Amino acid sequence: MFKVSIVIVSDTCAKDHSADLTAEKVGSVFSGYDTFNNPSIFDVGPTVYVPDHKYSIQKNVLELTEGDSPSRLILTCGGTGFTTKDITPEAISPLIERPAPGIVHAMLSKSLSITSFAMMSRPVAGTIKSSLVITLPGSPKAASENLSAIIHTMKHALAQMDSENSRALHDKM
Amino acid sequence: MFKVSIVIVSDTCAKDHSADLTAEKVGSVFSGYDTFNNPSIFDVGPTVYVPDHKYSIQKNVLELTEGDSPSRLILTCGGTGFTTKDITPEAISPLIERPAPGIVHAMLSKSLSITSFAMMSRPVAGTIKSSLVITLPGSPKAASENLSAIIHTMKHALAQMDSENSRALHDKM
Amino acid sequence: MFKVSIVIVSDTCAKDHSADLTAEKVGSVFSGYDTFNNPSIFDVGPTVYVPDHKYSIQKNVLELTEGDSPSRLILTCGGTGFTTKDITPEAISPLIERPAPGIVHAMLSKSLSITSFAMMSRPVAGTIKSSLVITLPGSPKAASENLSAIIHTMKHALAQMDSENSRALHDKM
Ligand code: NA
Repeated sequence: MFKVSIVIVSDTCAKDHSADLTAEKVGSVFSGYDTFNNPSIFDVGPTVYVPDHKYSIQKNVLELTEGDSPSRLILTCGGTGFTTKDITPEAISPLIERPAPGIVHAMLSKSLSITSFAMMSRPVAGTIKSSLVITLPGSPKAASENLSAIIHTMKHALAQMDSENSRALHDKM
Repeated sequence: MFKVSIVIVSDTCAKDHSADLTAEKVGSVFSGYDTFNNPSIFDVGPTVYVPDHKYSIQKNVLELTEGDSPSRLILTCGGTGFTTKDITPEAISPLIERPAPGIVHAMLSKSLSITSFAMMSRPVAGTIKSSLVITLPGSPKAASENLSAIIHTMKHALAQMDSENSRALHDKM
Repeated sequence: MFKVSIVIVSDTCAKDHSADLTAEKVGSVFSGYDTFNNPSIFDVGPTVYVPDHKYSIQKNVLELTEGDSPSRLILTCGGTGFTTKDITPEAISPLIERPAPGIVHAMLSKSLSITSFAMMSRPVAGTIKSSLVITLPGSPKAASENLSAIIHTMKHALAQMDSENSRALHDKM
């Protein structure tokens, strides 16, 4: 199983976790997807709450990538728009070791097919150590739509990250 | 109303403004759009002409973002292709504080649906201070097509930039 | 004619060139395309084999951009995924002088329309001196599909790179 962490980036939700409706919605995308997998693929850990503060976002995300049991998939939610507080992409980008423009493209294509407001999203995706980090929008609807657009590929991306060689991996799959 | 500036990047047009056919075409996208808005949303200021020179582009764009009444939407036109002179994205990129890949994606998707030559475009979009800066192609047709693909979202993006919180903003809209 | 170089990035193929099936497949996209052009447009040189090593990739690609007869189009194949060895985009990105997001967008759109696994690709494209450098995936199928999505625009992009002015160029075409 791949350990997953949902990081809610929001001043409001960091003070009052009950104000957050997004983590549950994003978690339900994983549980819905895993219904069809036996054994389960994703192990979604406790939600992490962080204020809209660059270094808090960076510190919390980096901590999740470290230690004996790092989160393999880290999904931030919120802070990807244009308000003065929105700083999540700027916090995550400098930490990314290997950018994943294909994931960004897939999320933007899907969400632009739903609403032209998706062009106001500023997603970032890529690897930090053995973790894949993806920034989702903050609204429950947009966050779950973005995740739904990519979730089928996540186990393959994470399995590749554990491998030295995609050809060898492909032979095993 | 949001103040808009059109910046024509072209050695030829910087010497002879009458050679420019793009500013008028781009301006007409705004006036066409604003016909449906009462009161008007966009106030398009005098066209700025700049040669294909990195520091001239940077100096002129930065000046538009400064002062008591900055341009909220700055559209450069030209210098986004592959000729030896094309340097607009390289001038703008290092100035961008918050990149807007959703706007870039929307413009490229739309223009690639019109012509495969759009893959020769190298657009950049993002915020500098309180301004949203977007690089459009130089030809009147391509510039107006690119702007048409995104203009409906511009007022929302600019309103978000004036706000601390997209949730509060959404409640007011 | 535009000189083309195919650079296979693979530890395995660098040791045993006969293990490589991609260069031939990519080469056949050029020969298939050039069947319709008289005179031919592309001159595909000898395949270059490089291990999955950042500085080897950089050294070999830079050498192809130098000298009296640089390769005008350099296509790397491989190392664009998520395995621990995949480092081609990280080798190429810092060398790029003018990024070409339109080419990246066109390749990702096309390959995502074929398979959602394309979101695991991490392509980079842009200019280095007078060369256009594009990273293709390593599999023969994906590499040739990506190239097929953009090959029709390559001669125009390369002709633009030889020109001072796209308007003048357009008049000649
Ligand atoms: Na698309």
